[in-house]
Amino acid sequence: MDKLNVVGKREVMLDAWEKATGQARFTDDLSFPGMLFGKILRSPYAHAKILQVDLTQALNVPGVKDAITGRDIPKKMYGIVPMAKDEYALAIEKVRYIGDEVAAVVATSVEAAEEAILKIRVDYEELPAVFDPFEAMRPGAPILHSNVPNNVSASIRKEFGNVARAFSESDVVYEDTFETQPVNHSPLEPQAALAIVDLSGKVTLWSSTQIPFFLRRNLATTLDIPESKVRVIKPKVGGGFGQKIDLYAKDFCAAFFAMRTGKPVKFVYEREEVFTSTRQRHPMHIQLKTGMKKDGTLLAQQFKVVADGGAYNSTAPLMITLACYFIMLPYRLENLLFEGYHVYTNKPVGGAMRGHGIPQVRFAVETQLDMIAEKMGIDPLELRLKNAFLAGEPHPGKLLVQSCGFSDTLVKAAEGIEWKEKRGKLPFGRGVGLAGASFPSGVSNMSHISSGAIVKIERDGAVTLLTGAADIGQGAETVISQIVAEELGVTLEDIRITAADTEITPLDPGTFGSGVTLRAGNAAKMAALAAKEKLFEAVAEKMEVHSKDLEAKNRRIYMKDQPEKGMSLIEAIKIYQYSDRPMPIIGRGSYLPPAKEPTTLLKEDGNFSPAYSFMTQAAEVEVDTQTGKIKVLKMVASHDCGRAINPMLVEGQLEGSVVGGMGQALYEDVITDKGEVVNPSFLDYGIPTAMEVPSIVSIEVETNDPEGPFGAKESGEGTQLAPAPAIVNAIYDAIGVRFKTLPVTPEKVLEALWKK
Amino acid sequence: MDKLNVVGKREVMLDAWEKATGQARFTDDLSFPGMLFGKILRSPYAHAKILQVDLTQALNVPGVKDAITGRDIPKKMYGIVPMAKDEYALAIEKVRYIGDEVAAVVATSVEAAEEAILKIRVDYEELPAVFDPFEAMRPGAPILHSNVPNNVSASIRKEFGNVARAFSESDVVYEDTFETQPVNHSPLEPQAALAIVDLSGKVTLWSSTQIPFFLRRNLATTLDIPESKVRVIKPKVGGGFGQKIDLYAKDFCAAFFAMRTGKPVKFVYEREEVFTSTRQRHPMHIQLKTGMKKDGTLLAQQFKVVADGGAYNSTAPLMITLACYFIMLPYRLENLLFEGYHVYTNKPVGGAMRGHGIPQVRFAVETQLDMIAEKMGIDPLELRLKNAFLAGEPHPGKLLVQSCGFSDTLVKAAEGIEWKEKRGKLPFGRGVGLAGASFPSGVSNMSHISSGAIVKIERDGAVTLLTGAADIGQGAETVISQIVAEELGVTLEDIRITAADTEITPLDPGTFGSGVTLRAGNAAKMAALAAKEKLFEAVAEKMEVHSKDLEAKNRRIYMKDQPEKGMSLIEAIKIYQYSDRPMPIIGRGSYLPPAKEPTTLLKEDGNFSPAYSFMTQAAEVEVDTQTGKIKVLKMVASHDCGRAINPMLVEGQLEGSVVGGMGQALYEDVITDKGEVVNPSFLDYGIPTAMEVPSIVSIEVETNDPEGPFGAKESGEGTQLAPAPAIVNAIYDAIGVRFKTLPVTPEKVLEALWKK
Repeated sequence: MDKLNVVGKREVMLDAWEKATGQARFTDDLSFPGMLFGKILRSPYAHAKILQVDLTQALNVPGVKDAITGRDIPKKMYGIVPMAKDEYALAIEKVRYIGDEVAAVVATSVEAAEEAILKIRVDYEELPAVFDPFEAMRPGAPILHSNVPNNVSASIRKEFGNVARAFSESDVVYEDTFETQPVNHSPLEPQAALAIVDLSGKVTLWSSTQIPFFLRRNLATTLDIPESKVRVIKPKVGGGFGQKIDLYAKDFCAAFFAMRTGKPVKFVYEREEVFTSTRQRHPMHIQLKTGMKKDGTLLAQQFKVVADGGAYNSTAPLMITLACYFIMLPYRLENLLFEGYHVYTNKPVGGAMRGHGIPQVRFAVETQLDMIAEKMGIDPLELRLKNAFLAGEPHPGKLLVQSCGFSDTLVKAAEGIEWKEKRGKLPFGRGVGLAGASFPSGVSNMSHISSGAIVKIERDGAVTLLTGAADIGQGAETVISQIVAEELGVTLEDIRITAADTEITPLDPGTFGSGVTLRAGNAAKMAALAAKEKLFEAVAEKMEVHSKDLEAKNRRIYMKDQPEKGMSLIEAIKIYQYSDRPMPIIGRGSYLPPAKEPTTLLKEDGNFSPAYSFMTQAAEVEVDTQTGKIKVLKMVASHDCGRAINPMLVEGQLEGSVVGGMGQALYEDVITDKGEVVNPSFLDYGIPTAMEVPSIVSIEVETNDPEGPFGAKESGEGTQLAPAPAIVNAIYDAIGVRFKTLPVTPEKVLEALWKK
Repeated sequence: MDKLNVVGKREVMLDAWEKATGQARFTDDLSFPGMLFGKILRSPYAHAKILQVDLTQALNVPGVKDAITGRDIPKKMYGIVPMAKDEYALAIEKVRYIGDEVAAVVATSVEAAEEAILKIRVDYEELPAVFDPFEAMRPGAPILHSNVPNNVSASIRKEFGNVARAFSESDVVYEDTFETQPVNHSPLEPQAALAIVDLSGKVTLWSSTQIPFFLRRNLATTLDIPESKVRVIKPKVGGGFGQKIDLYAKDFCAAFFAMRTGKPVKFVYEREEVFTSTRQRHPMHIQLKTGMKKDGTLLAQQFKVVADGGAYNSTAPLMITLACYFIMLPYRLENLLFEGYHVYTNKPVGGAMRGHGIPQVRFAVETQLDMIAEKMGIDPLELRLKNAFLAGEPHPGKLLVQSCGFSDTLVKAAEGIEWKEKRGKLPFGRGVGLAGASFPSGVSNMSHISSGAIVKIERDGAVTLLTGAADIGQGAETVISQIVAEELGVTLEDIRITAADTEITPLDPGTFGSGVTLRAGNAAKMAALAAKEKLFEAVAEKMEVHSKDLEAKNRRIYMKDQPEKGMSLIEAIKIYQYSDRPMPIIGRGSYLPPAKEPTTLLKEDGNFSPAYSFMTQAAEVEVDTQTGKIKVLKMVASHDCGRAINPMLVEGQLEGSVVGGMGQALYEDVITDKGEVVNPSFLDYGIPTAMEVPSIVSIEVETNDPEGPFGAKESGEGTQLAPAPAIVNAIYDAIGVRFKTLPVTPEKVLEALWKK
C-alpha cells in the first residue's frame, strides 16, 4: 500500500473545539435584527376534514405579525421521491395524523406565537382512522389519500433465480415472522430554519438539513418560485440520521413568512414535535422463508414485508426498494423473492433512518440464521462463513462487488468476543451472539446529481476547498479535507473548507445512503489532482523534466525517483505565478457514481452502488432473570470500510451504531395510542445513555476498494444493521429464549422466562 | 459589430434598490452579539518622540476591555509597495504627523471608548517639523524616517528620445510652473472594519476596502500570522476613489483586539479622521518646459515634479512612476524627460486618488498647451488634434495602443460645447475651454496577481458567478454579470454573483487603476466560455453537429446558421446531465494582463497596460466679476471607453468625474496650518453640491479594443484628468486671466481682476 501522510491518520475533527466549547453556531444560534419567531398549529385528530380555520383572534394577539393556513399557500406537493409526492407544507383539505400541520403564525416573540397558536379556531369533521397496516390494506378501510384506494402507496415484487424450484431442492425450509418497532432518530439538535428575503425576492434559508440542494429544490417547488431564487445554507447540524432529509413545515413557513413580511423568520421545533411530526424508522412486519442444503448452503429466501408508513410517503418507494436490494448481500444467495408493501396509516410518518429500510429485514435474516444453525447443529459463525459472499463473485442481482472483507469481519468479530470460548459455554443468563451485514457506499446517482468540488491553491500555499457535501456531525468536512491534503501533499492545517451553500459551492446530493466520503471525496480528490497538475506543468517546465515524474508530499514537489531533486510548494507556486500563469491555481472535480438508480432497478437490474461495505457485530449480554433487565457487557464491531480515511471518525461511527442498535434492540419504541404518541420526550422515550453503553471494541478491516477515494467505502450506516440481531442472538445464548419482536423489554423477558 | 443582447444595455445597477431603500449593508451596518467598539488615540504633534504611554486610567473606565500602544503590536511595517513599507499600524517610537496613530482601546460602547481615549497619558518629546517639500529636501532639514536622510523617499528620472537636442531643434520653447493642492477623496462611507476570530485563530475581517486580497496580505503581515489565517470580506462599500486601497489602523486594531479579547471588534472612523488620517491626493509643484515647431508640432517636454507626500509613503514610488508614464499619452511625443520626487513632510499622507498622480501633471500640460496655442496663434483644439496620438502608431515608451479614439473625443467635445461658435466669441465673463487626457485600463499585472472567475451553470439554468472583483459603488458586479450573461446567452436576472471574499472567491487584485472591467471582465468571460463549451459539447453530440457551429442566445442553444435548429438552455442542461456528465457545469477563467509592472519600468521599458482609454472634457463657465465666483454652466465629457458594457454606468463615471474635477478646479483644498488640518469636515471643506453641478453631456466614443472584454476599456479615472484644466482654460477664455495654481477661488479671481 502506498505511503500516505494525512489519509489514514487519526486527525481531530476540524470543528471539534468549536463544538466542545459551545461556540459552534447551529441554525437556532443565528439571528437577525427584527427577526420574527414562528410556531405551527398541529392536528389533534388522527384523521379529519378541515372545514374552516379562523385566524382572527390569533392575529389580535399583541406581537403577532402574520398567520397562515394551508389555504394561503401554493397548492404544490413536495416529497423526496418525485413520483411519490403526497404532502403539502400545511394540510389543505384534511389532516392525516396527530401532529399534521394545520396553520402557522409568526410574532415578535416565541411566547406571543405560542399564545396565538392556541387562539386559532379550527372546525374539523373527524373521519374514521386506521392505525394498523393490515387493516389499512383491507377493502373498506379508511382511505388516507384518495389516489391510493388500498393505502398501499408503494410496493415491490422482485425475484432472482427461481425461488419455487430452489425451495423444492432445499433439504430444509424454515419460515418465521418478525416485527420491528417505530424508532425515532432523536438528533440532539431539533429541526430549525431561519429565512431572509432580499429585494430581488431571493430567499436565503439556513436550515438543519442533510441535503441542501434537494431542500432548495423542494422549497422552490412548495414556494412556487424558481430554484435560483432560493439559497440554502447549512450551518452546523446536530445529527440527522436520515431525519433531516425531508423538507418540513418549518422550512416552508420560515421562507413563506419571510416573503410575506419581509422580515427574517425563525422556526425551531420542540422535542415533542420532533417525535410526533418529523420522521421515524418504519415499523415492519416481516415473513421470512429460507431454504437450505443439509451442509448449510443457503439456497433461497422469500420475504414478505409490510412497512407501516404512517400518513405520508416521504421516501416510501425508495425505502421499500432499498429494503429489497440491500438484502442481496452479504451472503451468496442465488434465489430471492422479495415482496414489499408500504402502507398508509393515520400515524406518524416513516422516513429514511440510518440503514433506511434494511435494519428491520436484517434483524429477521440474522435472527433466523441463528435459529436455523441451531436446528441444523451448525455453529452460527460457520454457517455465515460458509455462505459469505466473496469479492469478484458474479452476483445474481448484477451487483459489482470489487472489494469484500466480510469473512474477515466475521472472524475478527468472533475473536474479539471470544466466540470459541464463550458461545454456549457461559453460565445461564450470560451469552454471546453475532450478526453480519452489508451496505452500499452511496445508493445510485440519485437522478443524475453528481458531487462537485473546487480546489484553489493560494499564493501562500493555503488551499481552499469548495464542496457541496453536508457535514452533519459525522466529520465529512474533516475527511474530505484530509483527502485533498493527501492528494496535494500538504497538511490538514493548509486546507480551508467552505461547504454546503447552494449559492457558492458546487452541487452535491448531500448526506444520505452513506455516499459522502466516496462521492464528495472522489470529487474533491479529482479537483485537487487537477490543481496539482497545473502546478506540476509549470514546475516540470522549470526543472526540465516530465510532470508525470513529479510527486507532491510534505509541502514539497520533487522527482519521484530523486526526492532531493525538487522544491518547496511555495517556490513551485512562485514559479507557476512568475511563468505568467494565472493565479490562483484552480482545479475542478465532479464525480458521478457508475451506478443505476434503485428506483429504476424495478425495471432494470444492475449495480446500484459504486462500492459495498461489510461488517459483523458481536455482543456479549447478561440477563437479570429477576428483573428481566438486559445488560450489554461488550460489543465488538468489525467493519470493512475499504480504507479508513480517519480511523478515529470511523470508530465514532461504529460506536454510535452500537448505541443506536442497542436502542433498537432493547429500549426505543415510539408508542402510539390511536395514533397519538404517548412518549414524545427523552424522559419517556428510552434512548441508551452513558449508563447503558458497554465496552466497545472497533475493528477496521481494510480492503481498499478500487472505486473509493484512497480505497474508502462507507462506515456510517452498515454498522447500524447488525447490533440488534447480534444482541438478540446473544440473549438467546444467555437464556434460551428467542425474541422475534423488538424491542426486547424486561417485561417480555420476564414473561418469556415465566412461560419457560 | 456583432449583435449583443445584454452587453451595451442600460441595465439598472444590481444593488440599486437595496441602496435606494437603505437596506444595503455596509461594514458599519454589521454587528455581532458581544461586539466591542474601538477608538484610536492620535498624535496632537506634527513630529515628536513617544517617550511613554500610560494606559492605566483608560483601562479603568467602566466598559473598557482592552487597550494597546505601538509597543504591544508586532514590529511589522506595511505598505502598498513592498519596497516602500515605512509605516506601523500604530506609531512605535515617534509620531510624524498630526493624526498619526498612538494608541487604541476597545470597550462595550463607543462612548466608553471615547472617554478612555482621553484618559490615555502620553509623554511626547516634540521634534522640529517640516511642512514644505522644498525645505524638507534641504540639507539639515528635520528627518522623518532615519533611512531617508533627504526626505526623498521615491524619485524617478526617465528620458525618451533626446530632449536636449529636441529643445535645440524647437522653434519655440515655453517654461511654466504649476501648483496643485491636496484634495481628499471624501467617500460618503467613512473607513470601517469589523473583525471576529475563530478558535483556529483565523481572523475574519469585514472592511470598507477596494482590494480585499491585498488587504489580506498586509493584515497578515502586520498581525504576523500566515495569509491563510486571514479572511477578508468586502460588504457594500460607499465609495473609495483610491482612499480605501491602504490598510489602516482600524483594520489592524479590529483584528488585533479580536485576537486579544476573543470578541467581535468594530472600528469606524469619524469624518475628521478621514480628513486627517487616511490619504489625500498629493499636492504637486510642477515645472514644465515644452518645445515646439512653428507649425505646432510637439517636439519635447521636460517635467520636474515635486510631490508633497506627507509623513508616509503609501503608494509613493508607484504614484511618482505613474505620473511619468501616464503623461506619455494622449499626444505624440518623441522626446520626454521626466524628473519626479516624492518628499516626506510632517503632514497628512498622500495616496492613490482617482487618476493617481496624473491629474496634477495633466493640469499643467493642458493649461500650458492653451498658453502656447495662444502665443502661437493656433486654435487650442487644432493644436491638440495636430498632435493627437493615433491607434497603432509606434510609441517611444513602447506602449501598445491598439485602439484610440482621442481625435474623435476632441471633435465631439468641441461640437458639444459649440467651440467654433463660442471660443473667444463670448462676452467678457463667459468662456469655453477644453482639455484632453488618456488613461490605462489597469496598470500592469501588479506583482503577477491575476483576476480569477468561476462560473457554475445550475440545473435550472441559473448561473452562479464567483469573482474576486471588489465593487465599491461603481457597479462592477453589474458590469461583470452582464459580460457573463452575454457570453452564455442568458439574461442578467439569471446571474447570481458572489464577490470579494478572499476565502471563497478567486484571487483578484481589486479595484484600482481602472482595471476591473478589463481584468475581472475578461476572467469572467473566459469562465463563462469554458462552461458554455462543456454544454456545447454535449449538445453537439446529441444534435450530431460540430460544437463550433453552435451559438447561445436568449436562453437557447442553436446552430449559428439555422437558428430554428436548436433547443432551450434548460433542455441542453438536461441533455448534458443525462449524458452522465457531472453537474454542475463549472467553467474557470483567469486573466493576467499582457503587461509589465510600472515599478519595474524604471529598469525596463514596455507596455504597462492591456489597453488605453482617451477622453476630452469641455467646459463653459461664467465668472461673476463682482464676487469672483465661478459658475460652471456646462460640461461635455466625451470618452473612448472601447465599448460601454453598461452606458448608464459609464455616464455615472463621467458625471462623477466632472463633479470631482470641478472640486479640484474651484473648491476643494485640505488646508493645513503647521501640519494641522483646519477644515476637516464637510462644512468647512467644499466638495461641490447639487447646487454647483452644471448640465453635463456625456458622449461615448466606442472603439472596441481587441484586448477588452467585448471591446471594453476603462471609464473610471481617465475622465477625472481633464475637467480641471478644461475649466481653467474656460476661465481664461472668460476673463483673460491664467491661473496656474489650484483651486481657483473667488479671492484669487478678484485679486487677479484687480491686478488687471
